[in-house]
Amino acid sequence: MRKRRIIIIGAVAAGTAAAAAARRANPDAEIVLVDQGPDISYSACEMPIYVAGDIASDDRLVRFTPAAFSERYRVEVRVLTTVLAIDAETRHIDLLDERTGEKDQLWYDALILATGVRAHVPEALRTASHQVYVLRRLEDARALRTRLDRDASGHAVVAGAGYVGLDGVEGLTGSGWRVTLLASGGRILKGGLDPEMSLHLGRWLSSQGVQIRNERATGLDVSPDGRIRAVRTDAGERIGCDLVLAATGTRPNSELAVAAGIKVERSGGILVNEALQTSEAAIWACGDVVAYTDLMTGSSHPVPLALNAFRSGRVAGRNAARGGVGRAAAMQKVIHAAGVSVAGLEIGHTGLTLEGAVSAGLDAVAVDIRHRSASSNSPNKPLYVRLVGERGTRRLLGAQLIGEEGAAQRTNTVTALLRSEATVDDAYALDYLYTPKLAPAHDTLFVAARQLQKKLDASGRPSA
Amino acid sequence: MRKRRIIIIGAVAAGTAAAAAARRANPDAEIVLVDQGPDISYSACEMPIYVAGDIASDDRLVRFTPAAFSERYRVEVRVLTTVLAIDAETRHIDLLDERTGEKDQLWYDALILATGVRAHVPEALRTASHQVYVLRRLEDARALRTRLDRDASGHAVVAGAGYVGLDGVEGLTGSGWRVTLLASGGRILKGGLDPEMSLHLGRWLSSQGVQIRNERATGLDVSPDGRIRAVRTDAGERIGCDLVLAATGTRPNSELAVAAGIKVERSGGILVNEALQTSEAAIWACGDVVAYTDLMTGSSHPVPLALNAFRSGRVAGRNAARGGVGRAAAMQKVIHAAGVSVAGLEIGHTGLTLEGAVSAGLDAVAVDIRHRSASSNSPNKPLYVRLVGERGTRRLLGAQLIGEEGAAQRTNTVTALLRSEATVDDAYALDYLYTPKLAPAHDTLFVAARQLQKKLDASGRPSA
Repeated sequence: MRKRRIIIIGAVAAGTAAAAAARRANPDAEIVLVDQGPDISYSACEMPIYVAGDIASDDRLVRFTPAAFSERYRVEVRVLTTVLAIDAETRHIDLLDERTGEKDQLWYDALILATGVRAHVPEALRTASHQVYVLRRLEDARALRTRLDRDASGHAVVAGAGYVGLDGVEGLTGSGWRVTLLASGGRILKGGLDPEMSLHLGRWLSSQGVQIRNERATGLDVSPDGRIRAVRTDAGERIGCDLVLAATGTRPNSELAVAAGIKVERSGGILVNEALQTSEAAIWACGDVVAYTDLMTGSSHPVPLALNAFRSGRVAGRNAARGGVGRAAAMQKVIHAAGVSVAGLEIGHTGLTLEGAVSAGLDAVAVDIRHRSASSNSPNKPLYVRLVGERGTRRLLGAQLIGEEGAAQRTNTVTALLRSEATVDDAYALDYLYTPKLAPAHDTLFVAARQLQKKLDASGRPSA
Repeated sequence: MRKRRIIIIGAVAAGTAAAAAARRANPDAEIVLVDQGPDISYSACEMPIYVAGDIASDDRLVRFTPAAFSERYRVEVRVLTTVLAIDAETRHIDLLDERTGEKDQLWYDALILATGVRAHVPEALRTASHQVYVLRRLEDARALRTRLDRDASGHAVVAGAGYVGLDGVEGLTGSGWRVTLLASGGRILKGGLDPEMSLHLGRWLSSQGVQIRNERATGLDVSPDGRIRAVRTDAGERIGCDLVLAATGTRPNSELAVAAGIKVERSGGILVNEALQTSEAAIWACGDVVAYTDLMTGSSHPVPLALNAFRSGRVAGRNAARGGVGRAAAMQKVIHAAGVSVAGLEIGHTGLTLEGAVSAGLDAVAVDIRHRSASSNSPNKPLYVRLVGERGTRRLLGAQLIGEEGAAQRTNTVTALLRSEATVDDAYALDYLYTPKLAPAHDTLFVAARQLQKKLDASGRPSA
């Protein structure tokens, strides 16, 4: 019997998880793992640590080299290889080896798309200059680090205040550079924080020496020799600088899929069923390129998180490998829960923001509290919490936490409540630890839940 | 119409919460708050901070003085007043003013028992010497602190390795004393930690200079002038020392209740219904003296935690005050979730230990993992986790966490899972934050849940 051939396109978190899962599920399959870049199996979330110079080498971000992965999982790994086209009809892909320029074709029984997202740089910031950096792939981090090794200090403009922008702030300030962060409309982590919480984060970053400007980059001044001189903004300003990090969003790498007739949603995320099968039966998808079903709203859109990449890789790999034999694995619905550490501050958010809840058509309210990470008689730091809940049902919808201590792990507690469809009353009823040096007698989440109960009581069925 | 008179016996966390709630529920009631000691409304959990000398004065532990509380809530506060008897038939109590020696009687419409627990000192450690200390009430902490102010260093034997024993270790070592901890059978925090986890804690304490001995105190050597010379143990040892802290357990202060015909459970905790009414209709109970219903097992026993004291005080106060008018408030079932910080280590536990689960008749298994508080490329500390689950149902039963960072807050996440009757699979499915400086890519709880899934798979229905 001919061996089943599984091809996986993309070899970072999801792709390598898929390859490993496929191997476990099918010891005999022929598995080919393809990536456009030189690296596989690296930790993108840790790139700020490397950019900041806190670890000696980018080796520390790489879990497996191509050779090591190949040997460990008996997988053919082709790096620096671009997939030119997918033919879902005849089940083959066209490949280009970027080193040799040679083209190739490979037939598959199962194809897994783990193509991820790419940095999106708007027209205004595109230039021949090598001084506009992005921070998406390990090569990007390496290029930026090389620059910072050459120039121990300087002024960087980070255009965009999402996760990548904050990672850039962390890496650049950690490396001794002065940073101006362009946060259009004053919004930082817009997808995860409501404006009120953005403000706390902005104030903190300012206090730590980061210049925040509520502006958007609209162009570049580049010298004749290709050096960046300044960033121009929508406020008519010219901000002189030595480098620019374009943290201006990402786009799903789903063009190949679309060209092959695979269905995607509005933002380009690949649509899948619970088994992570795309609209083409022999093609699965996993990782950041996938449109996941959001547990809170039921809508489908990309939720680019490492744990989703890992989980979806396992599901897609197993299902692609089993060839109809055995029970299909299922990808769970996801909660958008994420966190970041920047300039010594912890930020965590989970579920829906008030903006997100309202735009999903929910009758939502929010409360904001400032409490403490520990008892007032112990060393403690302020902790800002916003809780979001639904009128009528009293369902807890989400939380945002910001503080120097205790924000990230408290976020997980709220996520556990959200997964159990907890009400605000359930959040209040939780048996929070009181450990004076680690948590106040009335934990910050307990206090926030109480405030949200009162707000909901004022507008609906009272709490018990 | 005569005003409703509510008497509350005991004025620490639960009693003062009850008084405040009674006042809110009934603006006209006459409320009398009685306490045997000189202090009310203090934070017992923070006494180690005071004993260690980390705060200047015991004032910092007191939320309200008797006068301030009396004014704020329009409550008559009688301190240094002992209740001699309760007559449930005629609804009155007999009182003794310890300062004047005068006796008094007070009639009530509603009585609330918030009498708490007392330190239990076994016969072997009872002595006329003032050098055997306990650590239960604020007076106890004050006495110990006074001693430590006099002698800047010395050797203390802490007899007993429960929460009070560890609080003693924290206070005494923080104050510069050398400490020997007697942990009978090698068990530390026996009610919250299985033997395997006790071991980690014991090793840490040893590494921090605390001498741990698997012995039990069986007697004292006291010099003719009343000074402690040594503690004798069941191993036949004599441990020379300058003071002894008897951390040898507590007993519910329920004798008055029993004498009044109120029903208690085996260990002396007062039995109550959901409204916290005792077996006598006009008498309620709250705080550490109450036998709460454990959510995990359905059994009733004291669960002496600050948040239970606060919650139960509110419920008892409201119900006692309403006089049958309006809807009765209900006390929730509780989860035994607690934590402590000692010698720079965080300890948290929630739900059932393996021992506790087995003795409750459950078919339970446990896994132990050692993982990290953060990513391996960031500063991180080892984190030890034990998860307990039930065969067959795959229900999560409890967790124990020990580490220098991130143990306490992760405990709350498990408590949220327990409250929603989560399975081990639900614990694995949680959307844990990955924030390299704050949590590893695969959070410690995620890794532990995976291990427990595998163990349950090996002995029952496999995971999805």
